[in-house]
Amino acid sequence: MADEDELAVTDRTTLKRIPERGHFDRDTLNAIIDEAMICHVGIVDEHGRPVVIPTFHGRDGDDLLLHGSAASRLLRTARNSEICVTITLIDSLVMARTAFHHSANYRSVVIFGVPEQITDDAEADAALNTLVEALIPGRMDEVRPNTTKEVRATLTLRLPITEASAKIRNGPPVDDEEDMDAAVWAGLLPVHTTFGEPITADDMRHDLPPSKSAANYRRPA
Amino acid sequence: MADEDELAVTDRTTLKRIPERGHFDRDTLNAIIDEAMICHVGIVDEHGRPVVIPTFHGRDGDDLLLHGSAASRLLRTARNSEICVTITLIDSLVMARTAFHHSANYRSVVIFGVPEQITDDAEADAALNTLVEALIPGRMDEVRPNTTKEVRATLTLRLPITEASAKIRNGPPVDDEEDMDAAVWAGLLPVHTTFGEPITADDMRHDLPPSKSAANYRRPA
Repeated sequence: MADEDELAVTDRTTLKRIPERGHFDRDTLNAIIDEAMICHVGIVDEHGRPVVIPTFHGRDGDDLLLHGSAASRLLRTARNSEICVTITLIDSLVMARTAFHHSANYRSVVIFGVPEQITDDAEADAALNTLVEALIPGRMDEVRPNTTKEVRATLTLRLPITEASAKIRNGPPVDDEEDMDAAVWAGLLPVHTTFGEPITADDMRHDLPPSKSAANYRRPA
Repeated sequence: MADEDELAVTDRTTLKRIPERGHFDRDTLNAIIDEAMICHVGIVDEHGRPVVIPTFHGRDGDDLLLHGSAASRLLRTARNSEICVTITLIDSLVMARTAFHHSANYRSVVIFGVPEQITDDAEADAALNTLVEALIPGRMDEVRPNTTKEVRATLTLRLPITEASAKIRNGPPVDDEEDMDAAVWAGLLPVHTTFGEPITADDMRHDLPPSKSAANYRRPA
C-alpha cells in the first residue's frame, strides 16, 4: 500500500543524476514551501516560449495557492495551463579546495501541474487570507477583512501538490582524493535571510508601535 | 540615436500594468544581476511544458553565463532554445493597512533569449572562473586552475543580455484614502541576506584559517 504522505514519482520529478538528493514526502516538501517567502512560476507563453515570474505563495493543506492582479496577463495564461512552480532556499555556500567542486547547500521544491482559478468569492477570500498569513503570520488579525470588490480584483489560483519533488543538498565540500592535500581552506559559508526593525510609514495617522506580526517576524514562523 | 546603455523594449519586456516599475538601462540590470546569488531558469520541455531550475549565474559584460553538469538533461535542453532567466531580490515586505495592499519592495530582472553553449576550452574555462568569482569574489586566487577535464565535464552557456528588463518596487505602503484613518500599523519590514561565520571542513589536512574570500564575504561585493 502506498504511503499517503509520499508522492508518486513521475518522469519529470525523477532525479536522474543524483537521486539521493530527491525527497517526495509531504512533510519535507511542506517545510520548504512554508519557509520560503517567494516562488518562481514558469509558464509557456502563446508563442511557446518560457516566462518565469516571481511571486508570493501560500499553502492550503495539499494545495499551493498563488495570486495576482485579475488584470495580469501572465496569471491569466497560467490558469488551466501547465505551470511549474520552483521554490529555492540557499542554506550555505560550499567552498571546496577546487573551483570545480564549489556548490551550495540548498533545499528546493518543484511542483508541476495545472492550476485552477478559484471563482467562488468565499473560497477566494479564504485563499487570500491564507496567502497573507503565509507571508506575515498573524497579520489577518490586525487588518480588516477583504471586501468582495478586493476579492474580485484578485486572480487566485489553486495548484494541487501532487506531482512534486524536493531536492536537498546538505553537507561539507567533497573534493577528489588527489586534491585533498592542497593547502586551501575548505568549508561552508552560512547564508541566512534576516529581518530588520520595522519601519513605520510616514503617513500614519495614529501613533502606533509596529504591530505584533511585524515586531515578532521570523521565518520559519 | 539610441542610447547604447538602454535596451530596446520588446513586446515581452513591456510592463503593461505598472510601467513606471520598468527599467531598461544596463547599470540598473547589472547591479541586480551581480547582487543576486542565484537565478531561476525557465525552459520548455520536449512536451511543451515549462520547467524552472534554480542555478548560479555570472555576468561577462553584456552576457549572462550559466553552467551545470554536462550530463544535465535540462541544461542540454536549454542550449539553443528559448529560455527565460529571472533574478529576484526582496528588499522589504510592504505592510499596508489592508490585506489587499500588502506587497513587497523588490528588484527583479527578466532576460529572454537563446543561449549558446561555449565549446572552446579556453573560453569555457574563463566563463567558469567568472561564475565562481560572481558567487565568491576572490576565490579563483585561492584555488588551483580548472583542468581541461573539469572544463569539459561542465556545460557552460552564454546568453546575451539584449531582451531584458528590470522591475523595481521601492516605497511605502499605499492604501486607499478610505482606509487611511484605520488604527492599523503600516510600514516596511526590511529583508536582508546575511552570511554567518565560515565553518571549516572536518577533513582539512592543513590547519588554516578561513580564506579571505570566505572571511570577508558580502553581497554586493
